[in-house]
Amino acid sequence: MRLLPEWLAHYQKTKLPGDLTAGLIVTVMLIPQSLAYAMLAGLPPEIGLYASVLPLVAYALLGSSMTLAVGPVAVASLMTASALQPLAQPGSEQYVVLAATLAFLSGIMLLAFGLLRLGFLANFLSHPVISGFISGSAILITVSQLKHLFGLTTNAGNVFQEVYQLLALLPQANPATTALGLGTLIFLFFARTYLSGVLQKIGLKQKTASLISRLAPMVAVIVSIITVAQWDLAAEAGVAIVGEVPAGLPSLNVLVPNMNHLAALWLPALLISLVGFVESVSVAQSLALKRQERIQPNRELLGLGAANMASALSGGYPVTGGFARSVVNFAAGANTPLAGVISAVLMAIVIASLTGLFHHLPQAVLSATIIIAVTALVDFSTFKAAWQYDRADALSLVVTLIGVLLLGVEAGVLIGVALSLAVLVWRSSRPHIAIVGRVPGTEHFRNVRRHKVDTLPNLLALRVDESLFFANASLVQSHIERCVAANPKVEYVLLLCPAVNQIDSTALEALTQLQESLSAKGIQFMLAEVKGPVMDRLHETHLGRALEGLIFLSAHDAFKFVEERNLDSLAFSR
Amino acid sequence: MRLLPEWLAHYQKTKLPGDLTAGLIVTVMLIPQSLAYAMLAGLPPEIGLYASVLPLVAYALLGSSMTLAVGPVAVASLMTASALQPLAQPGSEQYVVLAATLAFLSGIMLLAFGLLRLGFLANFLSHPVISGFISGSAILITVSQLKHLFGLTTNAGNVFQEVYQLLALLPQANPATTALGLGTLIFLFFARTYLSGVLQKIGLKQKTASLISRLAPMVAVIVSIITVAQWDLAAEAGVAIVGEVPAGLPSLNVLVPNMNHLAALWLPALLISLVGFVESVSVAQSLALKRQERIQPNRELLGLGAANMASALSGGYPVTGGFARSVVNFAAGANTPLAGVISAVLMAIVIASLTGLFHHLPQAVLSATIIIAVTALVDFSTFKAAWQYDRADALSLVVTLIGVLLLGVEAGVLIGVALSLAVLVWRSSRPHIAIVGRVPGTEHFRNVRRHKVDTLPNLLALRVDESLFFANASLVQSHIERCVAANPKVEYVLLLCPAVNQIDSTALEALTQLQESLSAKGIQFMLAEVKGPVMDRLHETHLGRALEGLIFLSAHDAFKFVEERNLDSLAFSR
Repeated sequence: MRLLPEWLAHYQKTKLPGDLTAGLIVTVMLIPQSLAYAMLAGLPPEIGLYASVLPLVAYALLGSSMTLAVGPVAVASLMTASALQPLAQPGSEQYVVLAATLAFLSGIMLLAFGLLRLGFLANFLSHPVISGFISGSAILITVSQLKHLFGLTTNAGNVFQEVYQLLALLPQANPATTALGLGTLIFLFFARTYLSGVLQKIGLKQKTASLISRLAPMVAVIVSIITVAQWDLAAEAGVAIVGEVPAGLPSLNVLVPNMNHLAALWLPALLISLVGFVESVSVAQSLALKRQERIQPNRELLGLGAANMASALSGGYPVTGGFARSVVNFAAGANTPLAGVISAVLMAIVIASLTGLFHHLPQAVLSATIIIAVTALVDFSTFKAAWQYDRADALSLVVTLIGVLLLGVEAGVLIGVALSLAVLVWRSSRPHIAIVGRVPGTEHFRNVRRHKVDTLPNLLALRVDESLFFANASLVQSHIERCVAANPKVEYVLLLCPAVNQIDSTALEALTQLQESLSAKGIQFMLAEVKGPVMDRLHETHLGRALEGLIFLSAHDAFKFVEERNLDSLAFSR
Repeated sequence: MRLLPEWLAHYQKTKLPGDLTAGLIVTVMLIPQSLAYAMLAGLPPEIGLYASVLPLVAYALLGSSMTLAVGPVAVASLMTASALQPLAQPGSEQYVVLAATLAFLSGIMLLAFGLLRLGFLANFLSHPVISGFISGSAILITVSQLKHLFGLTTNAGNVFQEVYQLLALLPQANPATTALGLGTLIFLFFARTYLSGVLQKIGLKQKTASLISRLAPMVAVIVSIITVAQWDLAAEAGVAIVGEVPAGLPSLNVLVPNMNHLAALWLPALLISLVGFVESVSVAQSLALKRQERIQPNRELLGLGAANMASALSGGYPVTGGFARSVVNFAAGANTPLAGVISAVLMAIVIASLTGLFHHLPQAVLSATIIIAVTALVDFSTFKAAWQYDRADALSLVVTLIGVLLLGVEAGVLIGVALSLAVLVWRSSRPHIAIVGRVPGTEHFRNVRRHKVDTLPNLLALRVDESLFFANASLVQSHIERCVAANPKVEYVLLLCPAVNQIDSTALEALTQLQESLSAKGIQFMLAEVKGPVMDRLHETHLGRALEGLIFLSAHDAFKFVEERNLDSLAFSR
């Protein structure tokens, strides 16, 4: 391995302006987001800031994306809260240690997956499951933040109770908090929806306008801090504020996790790692494609793993690549991960000397920031596309979403994975089996129901469109037996296997039985178009020996074989 | 539906002698087995007898096999004991009611599966899992019976503790019981192994000799009853005997199961149903094939369901088709299920008037009967075949077996099923992808590594040997991207889909991304040999529209298309 990453070893000065601009803009987004997501995770605000320094540098050194912006994100923060709340009091010292432990575990797992090249594990999360999971999480997060918007306190066990309690408590809402919260929400909503258009009308370029509109949360933060400080709304009107944020960079601590924590945290850490990895890779990939760059999934694992280790080391909590910040980073002209390093340096300066500025920041404003950020994650289009293309995928999506809302993030994602596996097996267990014939004048064989094809009266040629394995072996066997029983002229049964990628022991036994039973009826069983890897294993078996000379390279060869036999027997009978 | 089953409506007198002989011989096997398996299930002996009357008649009316012998079997008895022992004291009234409830639930489930044509559910149990399960159960049963052989009492929690306790207690074995138990075991072992051969040497036909050797357990029962009664070994030497077996046919009771029982018993009932069904069907099928008969899985579900309902109604416990008795039934000449009805009538006569004869029957003799019966079920050959053909299947078998031994029958079978599903997904997630070319002079395309084939320098033709779905979509995508990156001459990428039986939403998105990224590089993406059902769904999608005119019926057509384009551009460049 090189000591310096490729982008740094060959850094070109022309890339610096883009990286500087992007680094600065992302920092302006990152400050309110890191405070807000720490609050969402149940952590003191400074933990969000800590998670926004070293992890960015670690990713820059090991990751493969030029534009991914790493740091605290909404979904991982929700998953952190959900994992830790049963174990400790949110905001307590114990809770903070557990959060760093979670980042540590997640970092270890990601690094291990990267070194073992296990990036494929993330493939077990299908897009519909991910989409349902993200949408469900976004709804959960939004509902969880509503109480801060109105200055209320709830003690609900699930999302429906929460909504119910909020409605009941609404008359007791704190007026000043509500004004600040709803005001910010409306301001951010309009900024997101219309600001870019307005700025373009007054002459700004589309790109500039779109970037400026991304700074709205920082504007809301500054304005609200001034407002609260000016009239001392915390003391005078009971507005909940962030309060004291310790200044100074975090001390580096090597965690020695205790075994009880590991037992309680390994599953949440695994799920946070996989979900975070999948999300990061998909953002990084879609941005890389726009510039004809390539990202390497196993390098991403190393980058994210190192980022989480760095987060744990500096007292942070689980981080991953964020969707909105990465898009802004890309749009603002980031050319290399140096943009991330610049963000990290700026964040370090903020932490070292400017945390006092956040004292009067109202929690309601942070909540409004979170709500506006996560509602953009609710994804109807994937559901619509899945519903049109594949109902079973749409079902997986909806069940995952409902699972997240009713049972929480961990159970939701596990249910989604189990369901998508079940759908897979269910489909493979009902294979499409077609009776085929030869397309006239060609060597191709197609379904007799879909194409006009030639057949031979004493040859039953079937194509099974699935690997043969335990869940479909006896179905295929009895289907063929039925076809033979329905057609007394049959003297040859030909099974075309272009789609048979595997034959397991159970299916081998079924085929062996089939061959024996056909043979007892005087019918010859033949195979064609058997794949190389399948053939290699078949040769050694009883069935392979019984079928010697009856396994053909192509259906055409088998067809010719039967035609010739028919001519022979005709000649003989004459 | 007909009122009378086919076999009864058209019964031919010539079939009667075979059915009578078989019915009689099976009854002689059934008497000791039903007493022994009831003991194995933790039930009073008469429950085994009750389960051997009405269930046989019910199966005869609804089942489709001509030769399956239904009644108490070893594995279902073990599963009954394992399900009920946490809920009630073996042998207690409550335990007996729960056993009938289990039969009732199993009957309902089997009938429902039959009516809903859900027989395919049994396909989720692969042969290796079934084999591991049966072997594991046989070992469990053997170990559980050893204590009776020596007249000992144990309180072990698992099979290893049991063996350990037995070894420790062996010096305290009851001498008379041990003599009877080991004597019977040795007698039955020699009868099974050598008796048939000896009888053939003295002039009997092979079939007759083999049938007579099956009567050995009944001989052991009679001899031991006489021995114990003659010297009053129960009182004089402490030999545990069956004791009072109530005479008289069971009263019919309609069960009204209580909800708590249902909650505790549904899973065991489901597993007993599925395992029993799979075993019955495989025995019935292998016997039917020998006579060119056919069995219908959904009719089997109805037959076994009715048999279990009948068992519940008459105070029995779960029943299914037994392996050994079915083979004997077949060999003894059973032509129709009338043989089963004859067994039922004979069993009813025994219950009504002859139960007094069993009073002095030693439990050790029953245990020896069980051990000899189940050790025949331990199956090494499936393991050997699986090990040679498919290591993953061999692993499923071994893990299921160990699961049964360590965690019990239910956990064992569930672990086996989960593992075989995991193996399936794992395999599908690493698809075989081959670069292919045209076999000279044909229209066939084969792997460039396995065959001498023609290729075009600007065409990359790949065949992926798996359905495309979430677990392999991004692997296939990045594999193709890598092949393209490695080969800068490529202007056309052709994906051959003869083995692609499904494309799910996740894979559709991956292919769409791939097409867009190739298109951005000026490379044309093409498909060939797309299956009808896949094509139907693809047409409606964004990708389908983007590929219009680039989806070819055969790889050959796509090859010609590129060749013509190459000629055109050559002509143009001239």
